[in-house]
Amino acid sequence: MQAVVFDGNLRLDTDYSNPSAGAQEALIHVTRAGICNTDMELVKGYMGFTGVLGHEFVGVVEGGPLDGQRVVGEINLNCGECEVCLGGNPTQCPNRTTLGIDRKDGGMAEWVTLPTHLIHPLPDSISDDQAVFIEPLAAGLQTLHQTHISPHDRVVLIGAGKLGLLTAQIVALTGCDVTVIARHQQQRGLLSGWGIESVLSDEILPRSVDIVIDCTGTESGFADALEIVKARGTIHLKSTYHGSPQANLTRIVVDEVKIESSRCGPFPAAIRLLSRGLIDVESLIEGRYPLSEAMTAFEHAARKGVLKILLDVG
Amino acid sequence: MQAVVFDGNLRLDTDYSNPSAGAQEALIHVTRAGICNTDMELVKGYMGFTGVLGHEFVGVVEGGPLDGQRVVGEINLNCGECEVCLGGNPTQCPNRTTLGIDRKDGGMAEWVTLPTHLIHPLPDSISDDQAVFIEPLAAGLQTLHQTHISPHDRVVLIGAGKLGLLTAQIVALTGCDVTVIARHQQQRGLLSGWGIESVLSDEILPRSVDIVIDCTGTESGFADALEIVKARGTIHLKSTYHGSPQANLTRIVVDEVKIESSRCGPFPAAIRLLSRGLIDVESLIEGRYPLSEAMTAFEHAARKGVLKILLDVG
Repeated sequence: MQAVVFDGNLRLDTDYSNPSAGAQEALIHVTRAGICNTDMELVKGYMGFTGVLGHEFVGVVEGGPLDGQRVVGEINLNCGECEVCLGGNPTQCPNRTTLGIDRKDGGMAEWVTLPTHLIHPLPDSISDDQAVFIEPLAAGLQTLHQTHISPHDRVVLIGAGKLGLLTAQIVALTGCDVTVIARHQQQRGLLSGWGIESVLSDEILPRSVDIVIDCTGTESGFADALEIVKARGTIHLKSTYHGSPQANLTRIVVDEVKIESSRCGPFPAAIRLLSRGLIDVESLIEGRYPLSEAMTAFEHAARKGVLKILLDVG
Repeated sequence: MQAVVFDGNLRLDTDYSNPSAGAQEALIHVTRAGICNTDMELVKGYMGFTGVLGHEFVGVVEGGPLDGQRVVGEINLNCGECEVCLGGNPTQCPNRTTLGIDRKDGGMAEWVTLPTHLIHPLPDSISDDQAVFIEPLAAGLQTLHQTHISPHDRVVLIGAGKLGLLTAQIVALTGCDVTVIARHQQQRGLLSGWGIESVLSDEILPRSVDIVIDCTGTESGFADALEIVKARGTIHLKSTYHGSPQANLTRIVVDEVKIESSRCGPFPAAIRLLSRGLIDVESLIEGRYPLSEAMTAFEHAARKGVLKILLDVG
């Protein structure tokens, strides 16, 4: 089959072995996949990953009890048997592999397999284009699982990339006073269309914000967050960082600031919000390529400020 | 009066001007003061402080409505008028000065003044030696204000210095399963006497701890805390740090770890625990000098591993 493979080099493999479904697994014919910032990190060596990339996809199950169902799939392949899984935190399973990220072939290919308990059938109200965003939307929703955002709160989100723009829409649904720091006209236009205020970074007063959501994944983004958060406020880390950034831990202590963070989140909640039309994901689509042109798609996705690039697979 | 002054150099000033109490202030004749790690940092330039050191003290009020009362005093001189003060968080007042730490002469002197609302009369059940520990004990108690420690939790405290040993005793009162990482025989002996388990750092398994309390104030202490905390666990920062240490923020995000922190805490709670005999502070006293020998006292306090050094003032 055709597959986007990284093995030290990124390439389109036109003769990659088809996967076969084991017990309790589904074989899925992928129809569409998305390129994520994490993919751009993986091809630079993050996680030491080799194999088929892709953790944002939609497809149709072939065979088994779910035959013919249009589905999306969660990406943390948990063991189901350890203390963490039994404690109800499967995405934190220490024995997990991760689809297209850690020791498990992903969805940028004609076929992919996943354990059936990780698969979510889609309602007709959600298009294939929308469905590709369910995984990052669930990650954005995890912000609300890990941090209590009250309608009284003044919230500032830093880093108006793909995940930031999804998370901003989610956070705005709480009724809180949310502002996004955004420089690019395109992002500001999108936010404005959603009724979400955007400003430049120097427009936020120091120590004025209850909750800062840092979607930058950069040392300077974290420093900016510390600058604007109130004493006893919260900084929520929504992106991973390069290496070990320097952080002013003393300021955290003196101001009694809380740091919270989140990674993967609830697919059912993402499906509910999308099917009710509460989140605009289509506006984030900036390019679309057939799987055979995946290398061009990756080049496009790597350009600064580019939003979502899709791969049409099947 | 005699006073321990830092103005770029640390010295005993034998002719420092007596302070006089303003409106709503008390004049206090200091009887005993303690040397804290923060003092050792201040004399290296922390906070750019100049003036009389000392934020751990006990004394007797002279004049006014509290005349003759034996008292301790809180150290954050808040404005009482800003949003933060009115919101009930006076220790975080942005307009505050801090006794012996930031633009306010402290208690290592014969006389000190404080606003009367910061003064707490002492019961006879608390000795002067014990009273000197009320300020750091209150800081230790703030751990429980900022982090919910449940009796189900496995807690590990790193950094068995003065503040760590006080905080360990406080945390143990919650009934949680607390272990202290301690290398020195002296600290291990104290902990053992209090019925608190101590271990070496390599005896704690990675990702095994619900709540890690970092009292080290070092980059490596924070890295150790990240190593042993469970996914979705909490690291509580109880000390300030030198500069901006490097921190593995990505690990925080991937494991959805919470970072909480605390600084100054509730004096009334510290007084309650001490007067009920629930915290042993006397065992931490390692040396005692008259104010006139303050320079020798500071040299003693600066030695590695030394616990509390007291100054007998009046």
